[in-house]
Amino acid sequence: MKLKAVRMGIDTHQEYVVYLRADSAVSRAEGLDASARVMIADGKRHVIATLNVVDPGILSADHIGFSNVLWDDLDPVDSVTVTHAPVVESMSAVRGKIYNRDFTAGDIEAVIGDIARGYYSDLQIAAFLTASAGGRLNRDEVGYLTRAMVEVGDTLDWPGIDCIYDKHCVGGLPGNRTTPIVVAIASAAGLVMPKTSSRAITSPAGTADTMETLTQVELDIDRIRLAVENAGACMAWGGGIKLSPVDDVLIRVERSLDLDSKGQMVASVLSKKMAAGANHVLIDIPVGPTAKVRDLDTARGLHELFNYVADVLGLSVSVVLTDGGQPIGRGIGPALEARDVLAVLRNDENAPADLRDKALELGAHMLALSDAGHYDQAWCRAHEILSSGRAWHQFQRICEAQGGQREPGRAPWVHELDAHQSGRVDAIDNRRIARLAKLAGAPRAPTAGLELLVTIGDKVAVGDPLVRIHAESQGELDYAMVYYLNNRDMIHLERSP
Amino acid sequence: MKLKAVRMGIDTHQEYVVYLRADSAVSRAEGLDASARVMIADGKRHVIATLNVVDPGILSADHIGFSNVLWDDLDPVDSVTVTHAPVVESMSAVRGKIYNRDFTAGDIEAVIGDIARGYYSDLQIAAFLTASAGGRLNRDEVGYLTRAMVEVGDTLDWPGIDCIYDKHCVGGLPGNRTTPIVVAIASAAGLVMPKTSSRAITSPAGTADTMETLTQVELDIDRIRLAVENAGACMAWGGGIKLSPVDDVLIRVERSLDLDSKGQMVASVLSKKMAAGANHVLIDIPVGPTAKVRDLDTARGLHELFNYVADVLGLSVSVVLTDGGQPIGRGIGPALEARDVLAVLRNDENAPADLRDKALELGAHMLALSDAGHYDQAWCRAHEILSSGRAWHQFQRICEAQGGQREPGRAPWVHELDAHQSGRVDAIDNRRIARLAKLAGAPRAPTAGLELLVTIGDKVAVGDPLVRIHAESQGELDYAMVYYLNNRDMIHLERSP
Repeated sequence: MKLKAVRMGIDTHQEYVVYLRADSAVSRAEGLDASARVMIADGKRHVIATLNVVDPGILSADHIGFSNVLWDDLDPVDSVTVTHAPVVESMSAVRGKIYNRDFTAGDIEAVIGDIARGYYSDLQIAAFLTASAGGRLNRDEVGYLTRAMVEVGDTLDWPGIDCIYDKHCVGGLPGNRTTPIVVAIASAAGLVMPKTSSRAITSPAGTADTMETLTQVELDIDRIRLAVENAGACMAWGGGIKLSPVDDVLIRVERSLDLDSKGQMVASVLSKKMAAGANHVLIDIPVGPTAKVRDLDTARGLHELFNYVADVLGLSVSVVLTDGGQPIGRGIGPALEARDVLAVLRNDENAPADLRDKALELGAHMLALSDAGHYDQAWCRAHEILSSGRAWHQFQRICEAQGGQREPGRAPWVHELDAHQSGRVDAIDNRRIARLAKLAGAPRAPTAGLELLVTIGDKVAVGDPLVRIHAESQGELDYAMVYYLNNRDMIHLERSP
Repeated sequence: MKLKAVRMGIDTHQEYVVYLRADSAVSRAEGLDASARVMIADGKRHVIATLNVVDPGILSADHIGFSNVLWDDLDPVDSVTVTHAPVVESMSAVRGKIYNRDFTAGDIEAVIGDIARGYYSDLQIAAFLTASAGGRLNRDEVGYLTRAMVEVGDTLDWPGIDCIYDKHCVGGLPGNRTTPIVVAIASAAGLVMPKTSSRAITSPAGTADTMETLTQVELDIDRIRLAVENAGACMAWGGGIKLSPVDDVLIRVERSLDLDSKGQMVASVLSKKMAAGANHVLIDIPVGPTAKVRDLDTARGLHELFNYVADVLGLSVSVVLTDGGQPIGRGIGPALEARDVLAVLRNDENAPADLRDKALELGAHMLALSDAGHYDQAWCRAHEILSSGRAWHQFQRICEAQGGQREPGRAPWVHELDAHQSGRVDAIDNRRIARLAKLAGAPRAPTAGLELLVTIGDKVAVGDPLVRIHAESQGELDYAMVYYLNNRDMIHLERSP
């Protein structure tokens, strides 16, 4: 029985949902109820979706509605058939894991393959993640997971180049935009860095959002190759190529469960890097009470796991634990962070010292990774490359190779918020600072966000400026200000005795 | 900001979903994206729902669409407000469980309370169930869970009656309709049994479906009390009263994960019985390769857990392991099972012996539970009650008290399927037999289903009848026949040597 597929105009996020009338011949013949899992086939492809049953007013009886993401992914040219979804065999491995059985490499391959094919419901993905969290994946299982995630996606290869470099920050620190500087330093020193970055998921800016205020980042694979050929590096948005696509699916579900799994994090990071063809990877783990990794024990556990899995997969990895006690740099939001990056690269007098210091540190680790050299010597080389202007020159080359460099814009609405008491800044809440920048419009509004005008240890008097909010609309400015005024202690002042 | 709520006409099963335009003022002010969890308040109540974002054509910008279940449950009289859902605090206990921390009684109370309030998304429920499955709930946690599930629902109490009896079968065996017979025997002996039963969830008939072909089962609480007062027992549909309502939610999600958790099963059964006011409970666990409980080890584990938890909760429980190797009785489907029940109660010559034997066995255990007497003596009493016609008389009294007894109907389409080879029946697949009855229309079509004309050990010749399919439409008859012909080995014949 064939049904004509129509776009329902309903955004269910990433979940495939189809809409059928209860009285449609297919629902009745197949005995389909609401929330049943159904297989949709259009002759070329098939996917599994969740069924919602709709009233007659909404749809014709011989039509089937597709949620927006399903419509975009399946892109049906003709009518489709609808049947009961088959049992997803690999779920038996997930049930085995629930009963404390280890996954084999084959189990994980089957699970990840089925998730990639869209066979798992969000519920089933949640069960897989929950069964794997809490340290229940052993080190070898994390290795299998990483490899399986690489295998279901696209991969880049770089014929004729032995060493491909990449870096990654596990995140959670607003303003921590070191990547453009590190890439400029490392590639100025001759390291090949085809860097792909994500847009913000929960943060006020991702590296791709920031770079987009400076150059073009939506590059296809040919354009990426051309940039790397011309400049030895690129800084592209990774979403255009499907590197480790299951990772995005898992992250979405993990996020709605607020689950942090060490094994999942390592597999997520390493699979993206392997898929991009990297074999030398620097990993930045900021540690702080309001960062993603909250204590040194967790950080050390991650460090070890990264080393083990990288070793198994033949990657050379260098893990650096950094201070995650407060935001890095001054700007938070795509364009505001881009301004900080430019200031550091141009050796501006007012460039934020913490961003410069951290970029130099990571740049040095990157150079040391390339020749197994001494960190101090590598630091001196990085410092020379940055302060001589070679990094800035190299950054411009990369932007040219991506279609030209531009200056980031400025938000029309700016408001400064002052201290209403005196004291010493003794803590800054990364999470609420990020939320404030998002309420001001970042990253959707690229020039929106905030400038953080103090760091921990600063003494402030009543009326001293603490934060400058940037917004693209009056409404968003107001919204952010109300949040700030209700959460003044996101910048915590210790009163002088 | 207020929005006018409208019924969307979309059946999302039990999940609360709201539909909002991306350009609605609320989405923009609150920064709401598809799949965000939002709180909906109408002045009197509030619930949490999942957001789907819709195209402008579907909804006005100042309206908010409700999925059918949300519309029915909230029944909004006026406009509603929409805000970001607060963090569900009790999820931190679930995350603790993932990290192998035990639940406290307070943790489980909070989780079950939040699920009852509709604060958990299906994803979060899946995480709770997965973290609790695989034997991860210890015996005390199962006790806390049972009690918490009772506390969030309605409860029945029976002032002036010390002992209230109930029975339960953990399921998985088609045709196993002993309850009406056991209730008749036990209440004829003076035991008070206010029995509430469910409709079929995945099976071709639940006790409520079968009883509905014989009398009225949709009784409100006053009607239940009246029946028990007049006849000492009732056999009502439990869905009209909200006994342990979270159980239904958990079962729905467990089912879509195909998860079987011992702890969850015990809490499910005992919470329903406690909520119904029972303090003496007989539990039937059929064991067989295609039953719900597949081996004796699992059955014994369940047995122990039932005993421990019942003890903690002050319930008197008797667990009976029974043969789940093949269906019980002849009919499978609401009316066909009712015919078997009537035949046994009326002492018909052709009544299925296995159903009669099993009902006597369970009836005897029930009587023994009431006076801690010897099983053999109890069996003799049960046998006397049944064969003398007292059970049949009592059954009629109960039906009268529920509004009168009627005869079950007959399906217009009947077709017999014969053996296409000779041999000895050596296995019958409960699951495929159930599926066959459902394809014929059961339980939606009350007279549909099948008669199983052989049992394990029977010798058949080519052309001997094996199964008689009953359907209410030609289409369903065809559908079932095709399935049977493709799955003849659901009745497995061992060829004679």
